[in-house]
Amino acid sequence: MSILVVGSVAYDGIETPFGKVDRILGGSATFISITASYFHSPLQLVGVVGHDFADEDLNKLKARNIDLEGLQIDSSGKTFFWQGRYHFDLNNRDTLDTQLNVFEKFDPVIPDSYQNAKVVCLGNIAPALQSKVLDQIETPDLVILDTMNFWIEGARQDLEATLNRVDVLIINDSEARELSGEPNLVKAADRIREMGPDTLIIKKGEHGALLFTNGSIFSAPAFPIVDIFDPTGAGDTFLGGFAGWLARSGDFSDDNFRRAVIYGSAMASFCVEKFGPERLLALTPAEINERYTAFRTLAEIPVQRDHTF
Amino acid sequence: MSILVVGSVAYDGIETPFGKVDRILGGSATFISITASYFHSPLQLVGVVGHDFADEDLNKLKARNIDLEGLQIDSSGKTFFWQGRYHFDLNNRDTLDTQLNVFEKFDPVIPDSYQNAKVVCLGNIAPALQSKVLDQIETPDLVILDTMNFWIEGARQDLEATLNRVDVLIINDSEARELSGEPNLVKAADRIREMGPDTLIIKKGEHGALLFTNGSIFSAPAFPIVDIFDPTGAGDTFLGGFAGWLARSGDFSDDNFRRAVIYGSAMASFCVEKFGPERLLALTPAEINERYTAFRTLAEIPVQRDHTF
Repeated sequence: MSILVVGSVAYDGIETPFGKVDRILGGSATFISITASYFHSPLQLVGVVGHDFADEDLNKLKARNIDLEGLQIDSSGKTFFWQGRYHFDLNNRDTLDTQLNVFEKFDPVIPDSYQNAKVVCLGNIAPALQSKVLDQIETPDLVILDTMNFWIEGARQDLEATLNRVDVLIINDSEARELSGEPNLVKAADRIREMGPDTLIIKKGEHGALLFTNGSIFSAPAFPIVDIFDPTGAGDTFLGGFAGWLARSGDFSDDNFRRAVIYGSAMASFCVEKFGPERLLALTPAEINERYTAFRTLAEIPVQRDHTF
Repeated sequence: MSILVVGSVAYDGIETPFGKVDRILGGSATFISITASYFHSPLQLVGVVGHDFADEDLNKLKARNIDLEGLQIDSSGKTFFWQGRYHFDLNNRDTLDTQLNVFEKFDPVIPDSYQNAKVVCLGNIAPALQSKVLDQIETPDLVILDTMNFWIEGARQDLEATLNRVDVLIINDSEARELSGEPNLVKAADRIREMGPDTLIIKKGEHGALLFTNGSIFSAPAFPIVDIFDPTGAGDTFLGGFAGWLARSGDFSDDNFRRAVIYGSAMASFCVEKFGPERLLALTPAEINERYTAFRTLAEIPVQRDHTF
């Protein structure tokens, strides 16, 4: 079972209350693939970079065993660049600069060798492009989609057409409310699941995540982190851990979706410890296992024992 | 082991997106004692009401087996009255009217028969009054305190003196940040626990609650409620379920504190289903047990099984 990841490969300029970096590897496809690479291979990336993309960064991806046949190198321009500054509480950020560069004309072409991908991760790009990717894949077992308020507001029709072809949608709470028109998240989930995705994950940042499947609702905690250094890429990292675990295990049961949510949350909790994907590039399987166990301890509700009614 | 509850007994006028009630039984001591009465007796209430307090409402408390020797009836004025309107999302409310009435001169006097109370619940009143209550109790096993931003801002010195005498503090996330001066809740919890309480519970409304003890952090989910009708009293109800379970079991271990948080959350999830304490007055033990189990299912993280690293 191969994983296909489509999204942006970029450079980020990041300022947080704890430091500043002018230019660091970023982009949704980058975070998703680096993360998923801990769980499964082959891992196939589709994206575009410009003439300024450094060999050093290409090598970081290669070192994670990521198949780069689908990474276009467009020598006509520079790599997508985003610059932002996080506020004191790290929950909000201001975009200081966005240069789409070669990403503006990104036209995802799926190489022949990718076409039998089984787990497809559609990172946050235009819904029309996400659909175009699906047109090129033969028989995916699981399609996972990320999107954002920008597309909910600006490309709603395209988004609804794409949602109809998707198994799992991953969005945050304000996006879920906007997409459904429902303030109550349980009702919002019902409406969104009627739009296509059987499974919905609502990310709530420092409050964890909710998983809605046919059978049940699962409330996953967030890992209590003392020093959140840089939240950039945490959402994509969540998707990478989630998809990676499902591809690794090949089990799409409710229980295993829960495990996938915890692996996603665990990977995201590492991601925020350093700038960009730095922490993700230096993980060990033992650390991942340990954090999974820490999540279980964190959320463990003891059985009712004595003194019940 | 007896439970002592000190706080307000009031009438509330409530408007939510789903309905309106002009005058219904309310107040922190009311919600705490009705809730705790499902878990343990004797349950001793200390509060004050005015000449307008209805026999019908007294009888509701008596029917729950609540000892009212400490409920002063001050015929010089009317009962504390609060009126508020909730916004569409139910997370915010506007206070439309506050008439302190006899509550303005409330001077808690603990009857002789209450003085060996073992679990003491100090509802949200002036910290100086909370201290005054503690002066009158011989050897409490567990003192639980609720407070709010009004006292954090306006009576900080009194509050710090009281906190020093308390075992468990229950506040919400914005109050925790304000009290500690720390945006990060893990750091906030460390600072607050240095002020006195060994155990801290941070309530996060629709996002659940965090329990900080010496040994661990516990993240409790919120119950996903489709129809939140009226949030009034949910925080006091949490305290009542928490304290009630601890008094019932007499076990102050970390694991049992977790159970107490879930019982508190379960009771609060019932509270919001109807106006005021209506739903709480009509519960069955079977319903409480069932909801506890539903919380366990909601938060259950499966063990890592196959395919681990």
